[in-house]
Amino acid sequence: MQRPVHGGNLFWAACQIGCPTSSILDFSASINPIGPPQSVLNAIQSSLQNINHYPDPNYTELREILAQYYKLSPEWILIGNGVAELLTWAGRELAQQEIAYIFNPFFNDYLRALKTFQANVKSIDFLWQQDNPIATPDNFQWEKSGVIINNPHNPTGKLLKKELFVNLLENLSLVVVDEAFMDFVDPLQQESLISWVSKYSNLIILRSLTKFYSIPGLRLGCAISHPDRLKKWQAWRDPWSVNYLATVAGIAAINDKEFTNSTRQWLLFNRKKLFQGLSKIKGLKPISSSVNFFLVETLIESSKLQEQLLHKHHILIRDCLSFHKLGDKYFRVAVRAEQDNQRLLDALSETLRV
Amino acid sequence: MQRPVHGGNLFWAACQIGCPTSSILDFSASINPIGPPQSVLNAIQSSLQNINHYPDPNYTELREILAQYYKLSPEWILIGNGVAELLTWAGRELAQQEIAYIFNPFFNDYLRALKTFQANVKSIDFLWQQDNPIATPDNFQWEKSGVIINNPHNPTGKLLKKELFVNLLENLSLVVVDEAFMDFVDPLQQESLISWVSKYSNLIILRSLTKFYSIPGLRLGCAISHPDRLKKWQAWRDPWSVNYLATVAGIAAINDKEFTNSTRQWLLFNRKKLFQGLSKIKGLKPISSSVNFFLVETLIESSKLQEQLLHKHHILIRDCLSFHKLGDKYFRVAVRAEQDNQRLLDALSETLRV
Repeated sequence: MQRPVHGGNLFWAACQIGCPTSSILDFSASINPIGPPQSVLNAIQSSLQNINHYPDPNYTELREILAQYYKLSPEWILIGNGVAELLTWAGRELAQQEIAYIFNPFFNDYLRALKTFQANVKSIDFLWQQDNPIATPDNFQWEKSGVIINNPHNPTGKLLKKELFVNLLENLSLVVVDEAFMDFVDPLQQESLISWVSKYSNLIILRSLTKFYSIPGLRLGCAISHPDRLKKWQAWRDPWSVNYLATVAGIAAINDKEFTNSTRQWLLFNRKKLFQGLSKIKGLKPISSSVNFFLVETLIESSKLQEQLLHKHHILIRDCLSFHKLGDKYFRVAVRAEQDNQRLLDALSETLRV
Repeated sequence: MQRPVHGGNLFWAACQIGCPTSSILDFSASINPIGPPQSVLNAIQSSLQNINHYPDPNYTELREILAQYYKLSPEWILIGNGVAELLTWAGRELAQQEIAYIFNPFFNDYLRALKTFQANVKSIDFLWQQDNPIATPDNFQWEKSGVIINNPHNPTGKLLKKELFVNLLENLSLVVVDEAFMDFVDPLQQESLISWVSKYSNLIILRSLTKFYSIPGLRLGCAISHPDRLKKWQAWRDPWSVNYLATVAGIAAINDKEFTNSTRQWLLFNRKKLFQGLSKIKGLKPISSSVNFFLVETLIESSKLQEQLLHKHHILIRDCLSFHKLGDKYFRVAVRAEQDNQRLLDALSETLRV
């Protein structure tokens, strides 16, 4: 069985060690561990009798709720079957540019979407140890080019200031900003570009609802951009790409302010504690993060570490082999509940001591 | 609000008459009215706690169950987010041919998928009053062409014999057969081409699981074709295009033989009865059908009829404006439960008497 290129492949991990998926402690997918909210589960339960109807192809209700939440008009929002589906269409638009730039290391699915439409892809370094990680090199081609980047950045967890995007937005034909993890950023430190979409018609923002609300199994995300572009995407893709239960979950999730508050409290405390714990282990060096995961530099090869943790402790971490440039020197772990984080720290300590 | 181009748009209908969607009796979507099976609802209920995990991108378990069901090896099957998602990629392959033929009248989403990839589309008549409805005209271009057609045909309900496809399969570069309604055909009259996929590498079959098992809200279908082609599609599209609850539902559905039997009994009896009822109404002429819907010729314009039925009886029928060629002279209705069918017949009688 092939090594997966994404986190969260519990089925693969379970096959490696011959045990059920439920016995694996998953640090490889960066999903909020205190969800899904009970309100979401209740909403799904009480909507089950409606799965015999097609979804509303305009996703009117969820779009209106999201429009209020993001302080936009609904036509600036397109609901998607996870950010991954929307990446397909973003990839198609980027492929129409002479060059599609990606910052390395990058989320593997960007390359998938770009390759689907034979984009002319060029990768440039994401300078995560510097003040401006998205500074462009001297030979950067500004005209008729596009770029895709996530903010906060995955897998480093770096949050980029809005101002850093001005140069790209003023000079490139297309700028796709994947804000899949922005919900995990403290409200006082938000750097979302959503309020800029009306100013920049070349800006596309992607938002995920599955990570913060712990519903990756349901698939839900949205694209925020100029209505003309979103109408075009809607005409390209199939009419019912988002399933009904995902929309029901999305509506309940956005309305659940209590869950948002609990998540913030959990994250603030546990992110700090996990960082301190990882820093203390000899051979590991975590990078400070604005979100719910850490990229960790390791002296032991990460693929070996992954194997040992999986076989001995039933713990799954994310190797970074599919993140170009990082290879075997890094791994990524999600922040989980306090007790689980401690299990990870203990297992890592034991493995690295040997 | 724009008139919908697909059936089952209850949201649109509800807005027309200002009442909740639940008060509308929907004959516009051709969904099995005795589902979803209780086994499917139970399976979803007991799997809800797993929506915090990503779906298995290979959809291993459901593929294996479908492989047994269709008597194939799993690599010949690709699970899709409804047939509609798979149509997107079929459309892309058809667009690579010099001509992509469609038989008129056709399901509107074929044109959507073909236009997405700028296919050179030519439509030829579906000769539903003749022995071979897919006879090709004299000026048909055989070389480097592809075709998409459904069997049984939508909206006429005509079932085509397997043998009629031989000519297309032997001479065209690509043949896409959408068997979305094949499950509704009596087992003794099956004309599925599934057993031919290993013989014809230019054959793609699409199957829906949402109509027969009444789960269109969940989105679930599959493509059956040569493994090389399906691997290519999997690389094009996003890794988790099918949501986890749909896969759980699919597994339970395929295993529920009792539901299949009940459906056959319901359909056999009610299809005949509805046909007889429609035939007796002056001004209407239903076409005999192998599946769970009827195309009906009408003396009154179907869009007017639709409006009157909706406003006065809260009954939604499918006008045929989006089926090219049929226009206002036809409507389509699903076969529903006996009592509902009677409500439709009464409402039609009343409306046409005036």
